[in-house]
Amino acid sequence: MDTLCIGVDIGGSTIKNGLFLSSGQLVYESKLPTPRNGNYQELLDSLANGVKELIMGANVLWSQVSAIGVGVPAFINFREGIILHAPNLSLRNINLQKDLEKIWNKPVFIENDANLAALGETWLGAGNDSKHLMLVTIGTGIGCGIIIDNKIYHGSIGLAGEIGHMTIVHENGRECTCGKTGCLETEVSAKAISIAAGKLATRLKQGVLVDYYKKQGSISSSFVIEQAKLGDIDCLNIIADMGKILGSTLANVATILNPEKILIGGGIASVGNHLIVNIQKGFKQQATPLIYQNTTIELAKLVNRAGITGAAKLALSNTK
Amino acid sequence: MDTLCIGVDIGGSTIKNGLFLSSGQLVYESKLPTPRNGNYQELLDSLANGVKELIMGANVLWSQVSAIGVGVPAFINFREGIILHAPNLSLRNINLQKDLEKIWNKPVFIENDANLAALGETWLGAGNDSKHLMLVTIGTGIGCGIIIDNKIYHGSIGLAGEIGHMTIVHENGRECTCGKTGCLETEVSAKAISIAAGKLATRLKQGVLVDYYKKQGSISSSFVIEQAKLGDIDCLNIIADMGKILGSTLANVATILNPEKILIGGGIASVGNHLIVNIQKGFKQQATPLIYQNTTIELAKLVNRAGITGAAKLALSNTK
Repeated sequence: MDTLCIGVDIGGSTIKNGLFLSSGQLVYESKLPTPRNGNYQELLDSLANGVKELIMGANVLWSQVSAIGVGVPAFINFREGIILHAPNLSLRNINLQKDLEKIWNKPVFIENDANLAALGETWLGAGNDSKHLMLVTIGTGIGCGIIIDNKIYHGSIGLAGEIGHMTIVHENGRECTCGKTGCLETEVSAKAISIAAGKLATRLKQGVLVDYYKKQGSISSSFVIEQAKLGDIDCLNIIADMGKILGSTLANVATILNPEKILIGGGIASVGNHLIVNIQKGFKQQATPLIYQNTTIELAKLVNRAGITGAAKLALSNTK
Repeated sequence: MDTLCIGVDIGGSTIKNGLFLSSGQLVYESKLPTPRNGNYQELLDSLANGVKELIMGANVLWSQVSAIGVGVPAFINFREGIILHAPNLSLRNINLQKDLEKIWNKPVFIENDANLAALGETWLGAGNDSKHLMLVTIGTGIGCGIIIDNKIYHGSIGLAGEIGHMTIVHENGRECTCGKTGCLETEVSAKAISIAAGKLATRLKQGVLVDYYKKQGSISSSFVIEQAKLGDIDCLNIIADMGKILGSTLANVATILNPEKILIGGGIASVGNHLIVNIQKGFKQQATPLIYQNTTIELAKLVNRAGITGAAKLALSNTK
């Protein structure tokens, strides 16, 4: 019988579980809500219950599972499996690996969720066959995972790939959650879309943005994305501007890293090709010709399954 | 008897040769002029003669030498040892590795000179014990070598680390040799110092810059460096401004790579601590606190021997 591995993806609102064959085939998946009250025991219970449900649902034996990978939206000491800080889960300094190994009595591997999404894309998604790859996700913030030689790149102490906090506005930049100003994340994110839409609505005389703004007093990023998909020119322009900013920053990133592929994911990537084309435009403007010719920028493929896929791959790689 | 390795560093004006023990001890060194007329056979002859002199000078047997590493100021296909383009040597598409192996009948390894300097610093210089390190050299241009897990990082096709061509001025930037505008190299380099000094001299009423400018009509970077070392406040300010610009760019680089150490070398680093302090200031201003606290920025140590040291280490690592 083929080895079975479990990938767990702890998100801000949902815990996703996936049971995989070593071939990459997804055998079964399930999900449950994430307890967000900072009660660690409740989180452990949810993780244990989720995996129990998964095993029962898939109708396999626990003894068939060789290892479990777990992705957490957190800054992690990856060498020891410790959550240093997970702001969305209100957790700090917790040895999740040790605690889950006690519960499951199997090898457990803990990793940052963005890194696992990148690993997942490398294994089974748009990154197939790329040895040097980046996954950039655009949502509330910017997530980024870097794969070098098919492995997650952590940097010296696990801080690598925080491209959302590259400074791109050097004077009068907006305040960022990190305490600095002018970070990429302040110009390219759901919040940045909302701000740009509000500004545009006050300048325009008519259109969906103006109507929405009059009613609501502000414009959500999800409305802009939805209207961009329906072809509204103002919303398409907002996405285009943001894409170009991201593209020009990625040109600097690629000048340092020389990746083969840069994949774009996250909620805002649902706009699709229009976003990619504009990222490529911004990239072309600021990359050397050699870097431009040798870097592919495209949409990520696994969407909501990138996390569990990468988590399963992490478990698999460590038990082979 | 300990293994002997040879490191060769082909510079724009000088070919340096070093004979090393595997322990890192430099047994003997020699140098000769680089033929720069684009005559490839002449370059091969110079390389052969240089190594012959080295062996005779050190009074060792050719049979004791296990391998030779060669650094070239060029864009290189490192997998096959091919010089793709060496502008300063007027060479293109040459399989230097194959040709030198025919001459020497020993394993030869070819690598970019900036990468080898970084490897040399990691082995025997300021990088000692660092697994994740960068060496940034400031001279005519910006050179950069990245070491990850004690090995040279090339990126997907060997273009990694070209930080001199990160765009840092987004509007009305100066033209760069690469064809773009606003590259780091246009703001931080010997030429940038010369431009800044010329501008300052026309604004000032007196001082060494004004006197020099009146006599010469322009100011060389070496004059500025020399005067900065003697404590001239105007020249110190020019270096400080440039240091801060480099520091803020390195903050973005470190946000991506999370290196343990960034070493600063090259002709302009001879200014010493004043440069480092200002690089650190610019870095602090734009790095997240975690990155700032966990990145050491200091002077490189090996100066003119970094190249031969890294070349010998490359040979050694490949023959062990």
